[in-house]
Amino acid sequence: MTPYEIIKKKRDGAALSEEELHFLIRGYVRQEIPDYQIAAFLMAVFFRGMTDEETFLLTKVMIQSGDTVDLSGFGSLSADKHSTGGVGDKTTLIVAPIAASLGLHIAKMSGRGLGHTGGTVDKLESIPGYKTSISNDAFLAQAKDTGVAVIGASKDLVPADKLLYALRDVTATVDSIPLIAASIMSKKLAAGAKNIVLDVKYGSGAFMKTAGDAETLAKKMVDIGKRFGRNMAAVISNMDRPLGHTVGNVLELEEAVNVLRGRVCGDIRDISLTLASELYSLAAGISREEALIKAEKALENGDAYAKLRAWISAQGGDCGMLDDPLGAYADETVTEIKSPTSGYISHMDTEKIGLVSTLLGAGRQTKEDVLDLGAGIRLYKKTGDLAEKGETLCALYTKKTDVSPAADAFLSAVTFSDRPPAKQPLIYKIIR
Amino acid sequence: MTPYEIIKKKRDGAALSEEELHFLIRGYVRQEIPDYQIAAFLMAVFFRGMTDEETFLLTKVMIQSGDTVDLSGFGSLSADKHSTGGVGDKTTLIVAPIAASLGLHIAKMSGRGLGHTGGTVDKLESIPGYKTSISNDAFLAQAKDTGVAVIGASKDLVPADKLLYALRDVTATVDSIPLIAASIMSKKLAAGAKNIVLDVKYGSGAFMKTAGDAETLAKKMVDIGKRFGRNMAAVISNMDRPLGHTVGNVLELEEAVNVLRGRVCGDIRDISLTLASELYSLAAGISREEALIKAEKALENGDAYAKLRAWISAQGGDCGMLDDPLGAYADETVTEIKSPTSGYISHMDTEKIGLVSTLLGAGRQTKEDVLDLGAGIRLYKKTGDLAEKGETLCALYTKKTDVSPAADAFLSAVTFSDRPPAKQPLIYKIIR
Repeated sequence: MTPYEIIKKKRDGAALSEEELHFLIRGYVRQEIPDYQIAAFLMAVFFRGMTDEETFLLTKVMIQSGDTVDLSGFGSLSADKHSTGGVGDKTTLIVAPIAASLGLHIAKMSGRGLGHTGGTVDKLESIPGYKTSISNDAFLAQAKDTGVAVIGASKDLVPADKLLYALRDVTATVDSIPLIAASIMSKKLAAGAKNIVLDVKYGSGAFMKTAGDAETLAKKMVDIGKRFGRNMAAVISNMDRPLGHTVGNVLELEEAVNVLRGRVCGDIRDISLTLASELYSLAAGISREEALIKAEKALENGDAYAKLRAWISAQGGDCGMLDDPLGAYADETVTEIKSPTSGYISHMDTEKIGLVSTLLGAGRQTKEDVLDLGAGIRLYKKTGDLAEKGETLCALYTKKTDVSPAADAFLSAVTFSDRPPAKQPLIYKIIR
Repeated sequence: MTPYEIIKKKRDGAALSEEELHFLIRGYVRQEIPDYQIAAFLMAVFFRGMTDEETFLLTKVMIQSGDTVDLSGFGSLSADKHSTGGVGDKTTLIVAPIAASLGLHIAKMSGRGLGHTGGTVDKLESIPGYKTSISNDAFLAQAKDTGVAVIGASKDLVPADKLLYALRDVTATVDSIPLIAASIMSKKLAAGAKNIVLDVKYGSGAFMKTAGDAETLAKKMVDIGKRFGRNMAAVISNMDRPLGHTVGNVLELEEAVNVLRGRVCGDIRDISLTLASELYSLAAGISREEALIKAEKALENGDAYAKLRAWISAQGGDCGMLDDPLGAYADETVTEIKSPTSGYISHMDTEKIGLVSTLLGAGRQTKEDVLDLGAGIRLYKKTGDLAEKGETLCALYTKKTDVSPAADAFLSAVTFSDRPPAKQPLIYKIIR
């Protein structure tokens, strides 16, 4: 077996065996197979795709490249969620407390934001004192005692993914459904939860631009998880406009708190309840409808908010700030953007809005960028809303002295029309 | 402009501009763009192909990566030929003297053999004293005075090709018609001849397996050469059986001498006359038929053989050995292979026969292998011939003690049948 033969086999459209994939991935991680052969392989996968069996096997050999987390102590009650990435997506901050208040255990590793998408770890770091890195024992003990622990990703989990992702990122081989599926699922499976709900997003703010592509990816991932004996669901949801009314770290924390305190309704509450109830339904073996009623109750009676406070507190965070998250970030300049016309907002280029947030300092253009955790966007109008000329569309929060590039970019992302646009459902489909 | 954007553009099927190709190739040669990005690019080209314009531009920027040879001193009389590689292909040793005896000047760089194909430089080194490396001045002076000088490839000509070929070789991206065309033509054009004839081979012993692929490649290369103002012709010829009756370095030299001395007829004489007359027709601006009559005459009246001797002698070779080339290699063991059955030879797997020659010591499996220049195969029967059981099919020349792997491989390459196979024309088409 040689790397050349494996590249050629994939190039010519054949399915690879477990031995071949294992040889390739192990050789790459051990630096026995050079980058350039893996790059050629990845581009061949981009063009030829992978069968479901191959994608499962790739996921398996990627997991074998590193450590795995043992959550078997939680029996069937360990739970995890994953979002494929969006703009204004603060659902983890809401779903985890709801699920924990229903008796599930969330011992979760989350990522940082890059490009137009945000990351949960950054949002949590807007809370003074919150520790995104704690010992493995403390992590498991906290998930046991309070029901939630969320830390940054460990470098020892799936090192193959770190290497492959970095290479895909510079060789134009990111947009491959089997490679995306294996990347996400290898990390989720290595992280050990029995019940996994995926939030697979599509639209202008998502990596998948169409519902069809999102569904293909979702089915692949659900299939892989089931083969590993996990309870799986995938919610295919709309990311053609930002989720909720805030983009940026402490702004999103504030909105999550408001949802948990019953002060905010709409898409962000709806999808959080859907994700939480899917998790609970999987874990408890009850119907989706029954699970939703319980999740709503946990939100309404304050149990979920109490869980958020217990979690943040257990992990070193300053719980007091949750009463007024923006209080600690009062030195941001706030600039309101007025509507240049009267009409309905017919479309928001959501990826561009994510990049506006990056321009304001809330996101990273490169991995080394230091964030302004108080920066971001508060949206007053979203797709489908009517705006009168001169009405405030949004407020931009930043420490940057020149806000005009962000303001211009925001306005260029918004399209107006005389008529309201056709309504798009928030949730396109749920797959199990 | 970034390498990433260029890879993505090609991946998505767009044609690249001269600036983009120049940026990529120059960056690669200067080691500013890493192997892995070029590997991904090459695999994208494998799948997406290149337009004729792109292939021309790639050739152009590859030539710009290094030196070029100035043959303008020969006016319109400089000539070069190139074969895409075959088994038993000793035509340069015949074509160059014929063309020179008609007044053309051949200042040629040739390659070494690798894998199943031989190389002219190895064949010339079977002549004691022959210098495959001489100064540029001596090279040009010899081509002026005797009409022929053939040396090994210079590393300063098209360094981009050396780098790209080495990378293609390990990333399964060799079999791409635009990449092959740019690789061959960049070297031919940099070598400076005004008249270029390409021998594009197809069949079981060639890189192109079908006449159609060979024609596509030939047309691309002729088109590129014409754009650079060269007189171009491509002969598409059959390589579904070995060319001539010998494979191996001194054995092929002997056969070439025998053609030039009028002792051998058949395919090797026919194709050599075709290639030489195409070159002469291009350079002299006369018809193909008229040129062929002159070429035949130069062969028959001994002028061409005299040119071979003058060339070899000028380049330091021992001319006396040409009277009996095998005399200097008398220590080879010669093993005759008998026909295991009676019947017509319906097919010879010619690539495999090339590899038999390698097993005997006449070819290289890796670039570092040291050749046995006396080793090889003398064929007594070829495709279409009738063999009685026990009749000699071939003789194997080697210094290896165990000849049985080569003998077994030879027999496995030959197929017998009750009926003679359909005749295949030696020359499928000539393109100008």
